[in-house]
Amino acid sequence: MSQLRRDPITGRWVEINISSPMGCDDFDLKPQVKKGGVCPFCSGNEKMTPPEIEAIRPHTTKPDTPGWTVRVVSNKFPALKIEGNLDKRGIGIFDLSNGVGAHEVIIENPDHNKDLADLSRDEIKNVILKYRSRSLDLENDLRFRYILLFKNHGEAAGASLEHSHTQLVALPIVPKRVKEELKGAENYFKYRERCVFCDIIAQEFQEKERIIFENNSFLAFCPFVSRFPFEVWLLPKVHNPEFKSIDDNTIYDMADALKDVLMRVKIRLNDPAYNFIIHTSPIRDGSNEEFHWHLELMPKLTNVAGFEWGSGLYINPTSPEMNAKCLRETKI
Amino acid sequence: MSQLRRDPITGRWVEINISSPMGCDDFDLKPQVKKGGVCPFCSGNEKMTPPEIEAIRPHTTKPDTPGWTVRVVSNKFPALKIEGNLDKRGIGIFDLSNGVGAHEVIIENPDHNKDLADLSRDEIKNVILKYRSRSLDLENDLRFRYILLFKNHGEAAGASLEHSHTQLVALPIVPKRVKEELKGAENYFKYRERCVFCDIIAQEFQEKERIIFENNSFLAFCPFVSRFPFEVWLLPKVHNPEFKSIDDNTIYDMADALKDVLMRVKIRLNDPAYNFIIHTSPIRDGSNEEFHWHLELMPKLTNVAGFEWGSGLYINPTSPEMNAKCLRETKI
Repeated sequence: MSQLRRDPITGRWVEINISSPMGCDDFDLKPQVKKGGVCPFCSGNEKMTPPEIEAIRPHTTKPDTPGWTVRVVSNKFPALKIEGNLDKRGIGIFDLSNGVGAHEVIIENPDHNKDLADLSRDEIKNVILKYRSRSLDLENDLRFRYILLFKNHGEAAGASLEHSHTQLVALPIVPKRVKEELKGAENYFKYRERCVFCDIIAQEFQEKERIIFENNSFLAFCPFVSRFPFEVWLLPKVHNPEFKSIDDNTIYDMADALKDVLMRVKIRLNDPAYNFIIHTSPIRDGSNEEFHWHLELMPKLTNVAGFEWGSGLYINPTSPEMNAKCLRETKI
Repeated sequence: MSQLRRDPITGRWVEINISSPMGCDDFDLKPQVKKGGVCPFCSGNEKMTPPEIEAIRPHTTKPDTPGWTVRVVSNKFPALKIEGNLDKRGIGIFDLSNGVGAHEVIIENPDHNKDLADLSRDEIKNVILKYRSRSLDLENDLRFRYILLFKNHGEAAGASLEHSHTQLVALPIVPKRVKEELKGAENYFKYRERCVFCDIIAQEFQEKERIIFENNSFLAFCPFVSRFPFEVWLLPKVHNPEFKSIDDNTIYDMADALKDVLMRVKIRLNDPAYNFIIHTSPIRDGSNEEFHWHLELMPKLTNVAGFEWGSGLYINPTSPEMNAKCLRETKI
């Protein structure tokens, strides 16, 4: 028997298979294959990328030379271009804007064969420090309204380069999914005078069965309304609408939680393709105190079919309770 | 340079590549491969499916025997089960419902090797007649609130059986994407006192460049805010909120338009995987006069990556204007 579950934030319904969920080993799990070849993100090939924007490197080394541990560059094939003024206008009943924005790449380490999951907690901390510093820098640009940090791991998840990296896109508009979440959190707050994400944390602690990991600052769990098999959310325990205001200690705890979850996913699911996205508030929008920033991780184990696209009703052939148990019990 | 376009119905932003769009031949186009083997949807194998619900067949033949041209059966592995009362309840802050619903399969023709595009207009008309009769029958069940008709063609589009078929799901809830469209159409109507879809038709006729095909009752075009390469919408020219009230003549024109579009897509894009979905109003909801039923067709040529999932901002590497030109000029 299946169960229909409704996401309290966005109102999205998801069908969950509770009676005979697909198990960890029922998926066609093939590890990501690194083909090698010349890679612009590898140490020694710094001249193949646009110039370095920021890097963590010894003071004795120069930009765009080896020696770095984390390196940020512009995307060579940007989705949006940084130059030009914002031009929003209408054509008949349609609205459009030119594609002004920033598109940057955070190269997580110089070694082609190391993925984010393979890095130490301190190394992951350095990567997250760059997420923060780039967010803080780009929000000064008055043309931008949203900064989106996301990672595509593996070809099936949309990664075009196999060397481990995170992408940052600064947008002149607030994307729809973000608006929906903000609105949902606001509606919930109006009704109950509490944050919906804080309430989710409380309920997850009460039920326990969907929890994978926790430390001082973060809770990692498979959400009750998981759209995808083995979906994992990382929620900061303390309410905070914006990722960018994260402090150094919390960054270390985030690295610790991310390392733990990525290792479990890599080992148990045979290094699947995955996406993760940091959900945070729009820039210069003081009215989002009800929001609670977090990270959503989605392994790519199934194809999304017409049913999902057409309806917004997702069918999850497994159950988050089983997924969480499976990841929790994985030895790392 | 790219352009950001905003969907006037849902508010969704899509980035369109207008300066150097990917062309028809820039995609990795591999035709769908039929592996054959024993197929439960083939003529002669009627006993392999659940019993026939409806069929178009000579009066001299019996149900669940050969002779049919279109056949409707329950899905053997249903997403939702037809038995039982609806049980909606809460667990803490979460809402859920048991998975009551109907999940049917419309087998479009008895021949394993013929896809919907290969059928004649009259044969496609018979398929659509079944879409209508099943919709009319299932709406009598008071537990259901929405009837979703959709087709997955090809493995990449989520088809688990290769014999050409359409699926119908009757749901006890109104899915999120439908609600958004209804709300968007309602908001637009409140503001302008006109239907947004009727306005889109008018604007497409004015600009012409995104039109692929038209006949007396339907317009087929690549929407201004196409999320996917070669996305095509089929809009009835006369305003009507509900698919189920379509008359016989309009069904014939729908078959004619669908045949034309599917042939162009099959020939020009080398028989790609695709989904199509019929968007219609919820059942027993008299307040959706602003809505305008239609069909959305999405060839599956690219992977959807983390960026799209996380933001609701789609990146379309091609442009609907180029797509429409390409399909319009295809010889069929």
